[in-house]
Amino acid sequence: MVKQDVIKPYVLGVDIGGTNTVYGIVDARGNIVLNGSIKTATHLDINDYIRDLTTGMQLLIDQVGGKDMIKGIGIGAPNGNFFTGSIDFAPNLPWKGRIMLADIISEKMGIPVALTNDANAAAIGEMTYGVARGMKNFIVITLGTGVGSGIVVNGTLVYGHDGFAGELGHTIIRRNGRICGCGRKGCLETYTSATGVARTAREYLEIRKDDSLLRELNIEDITSKDVYDAAMKGDKLSIEIFEATGAILGEAFADFVAFSSPEAIILFGGLTKAGDLLMDPIKRHMELNMLQIYKGKTKLLTSELKESDAAVLGASALGWEADKALRKANSVAGE
Amino acid sequence: MVKQDVIKPYVLGVDIGGTNTVYGIVDARGNIVLNGSIKTATHLDINDYIRDLTTGMQLLIDQVGGKDMIKGIGIGAPNGNFFTGSIDFAPNLPWKGRIMLADIISEKMGIPVALTNDANAAAIGEMTYGVARGMKNFIVITLGTGVGSGIVVNGTLVYGHDGFAGELGHTIIRRNGRICGCGRKGCLETYTSATGVARTAREYLEIRKDDSLLRELNIEDITSKDVYDAAMKGDKLSIEIFEATGAILGEAFADFVAFSSPEAIILFGGLTKAGDLLMDPIKRHMELNMLQIYKGKTKLLTSELKESDAAVLGASALGWEADKALRKANSVAGE
Repeated sequence: MVKQDVIKPYVLGVDIGGTNTVYGIVDARGNIVLNGSIKTATHLDINDYIRDLTTGMQLLIDQVGGKDMIKGIGIGAPNGNFFTGSIDFAPNLPWKGRIMLADIISEKMGIPVALTNDANAAAIGEMTYGVARGMKNFIVITLGTGVGSGIVVNGTLVYGHDGFAGELGHTIIRRNGRICGCGRKGCLETYTSATGVARTAREYLEIRKDDSLLRELNIEDITSKDVYDAAMKGDKLSIEIFEATGAILGEAFADFVAFSSPEAIILFGGLTKAGDLLMDPIKRHMELNMLQIYKGKTKLLTSELKESDAAVLGASALGWEADKALRKANSVAGE
Repeated sequence: MVKQDVIKPYVLGVDIGGTNTVYGIVDARGNIVLNGSIKTATHLDINDYIRDLTTGMQLLIDQVGGKDMIKGIGIGAPNGNFFTGSIDFAPNLPWKGRIMLADIISEKMGIPVALTNDANAAAIGEMTYGVARGMKNFIVITLGTGVGSGIVVNGTLVYGHDGFAGELGHTIIRRNGRICGCGRKGCLETYTSATGVARTAREYLEIRKDDSLLRELNIEDITSKDVYDAAMKGDKLSIEIFEATGAILGEAFADFVAFSSPEAIILFGGLTKAGDLLMDPIKRHMELNMLQIYKGKTKLLTSELKESDAAVLGASALGWEADKALRKANSVAGE
């Protein structure tokens, strides 16, 4: 529950994904009272996108009594920067360069807007409505198509000096390891994202000779969901893939703990559906690799927010503070 | 310069090292106005140590007009915990178990005491008197017998949920690498501390056949200082040792940046005397390994505080806030 504005009881959360943009009006208890969505990918022109998004939001806002009822708009977006309110060179979105989205939306709607990346929005969502309520130090790790992170220290999200802190999916877990979309090698995300799990499956199937249910599938089309389904049927190779994925995450988490000694690491996103198949090896390898003083102290949790709602809730939580989000337009380029 | 108490113009800083304990009275401008020291290692009984330390401190305090002139005492110690004010199982100190030093000293002296580990004290010192003045996000890395770190985020030291955050010397930089004193393998400190550099020298001399000035020395006695001296005389192998050490630090720093995106990484401690021999390869490999969005933005600096003073200054800076250091005596064991 959040400090409620007497006059403005709602916030509006927007989650911009590569395929869809979902938005909703949220009350102070974390209930999504109204929601809508538009396609992201089909809007190749940013102006068309902004027009359709603001039109869609306005429809919802009108239903709750107009903009005077909305405290702020929070937006979670890939490569979103809190300080500048911009989306910068996001490889999975249709628009190139830097989009000053927070300023544009704020001007069009007449409502304060804060914007950050999707993993940071998830961390704010967990702190405001989820399992991190009351926690001052925790890390959210999002395991989806990529691996993202939102870090909270002393009760505050870590943005760093430039708004770009918290790219733990791009820490190097295997020196000279797998090629990453970022152009470097061995990033955590190349092994432990949903696509990383599928990649491990293809590697195992090529290198090894043992039987597996996965061999019935077209090797190029295998997804992490296929690996999960096979593992649940007792497929040994598939169980080993989750074991290996969990081991790498556990090793990485042990190092993250040496940085900020969080009370909890909270997992979020599609891959967490694997449940104990993934959580058990993570926990085991995290403890095994941890420095003595940290052992047995950091909780490993999964988000309890409904996944379809969580992204909007997380973004919306940012809306409560949107009027305080002082943007430093030149902070990134200009230092 | 620090907000000065009208009535209490001084703080007292104590740096507890494995060999010596150095202490001094510091004014708000960061001048050490009086100082003293006692041996740490020869005091096998903690009670003898505390008696001699408090006696020594009292002598200085009397010279500035008594305890009413002292705002607080700050202590930097290996394995020091800010929340509990205790030194916990420090392998390089003569006393075993947990020593509740802050409470003991505070009671004996009648002055508020805050205690943290030596690297955190160094970070506070840089923020208060050194190159980090005005910075809100930076990391201090201490390169001495071990490798320590103090992390500042949003202008506040990162203590984590248990007071033990910031052990970056014990992040794993080479999976299954060198055995570390902590019982694990491949820690940053095994490669990049002063002893790590000497270890690299011994490895190179054993494996390689090429000439080196280092071959004139007894291989078991080689120190990082010997490697530095040889490198300064143009010894190729010694220069390569610093290159390899800097490469590993640069790789590690690139990952640290992905965590907190600091404005600067500040190096502190004996090994920084190697100057460009070490700084050039660090900078090169840090930039080479960094995620695109961070490149060219994080400064690499060395401490400008006189090393003999810096530890006392850093600890003393903690003294200004000692009256606000609420200790959570059971926070570590009791969560």
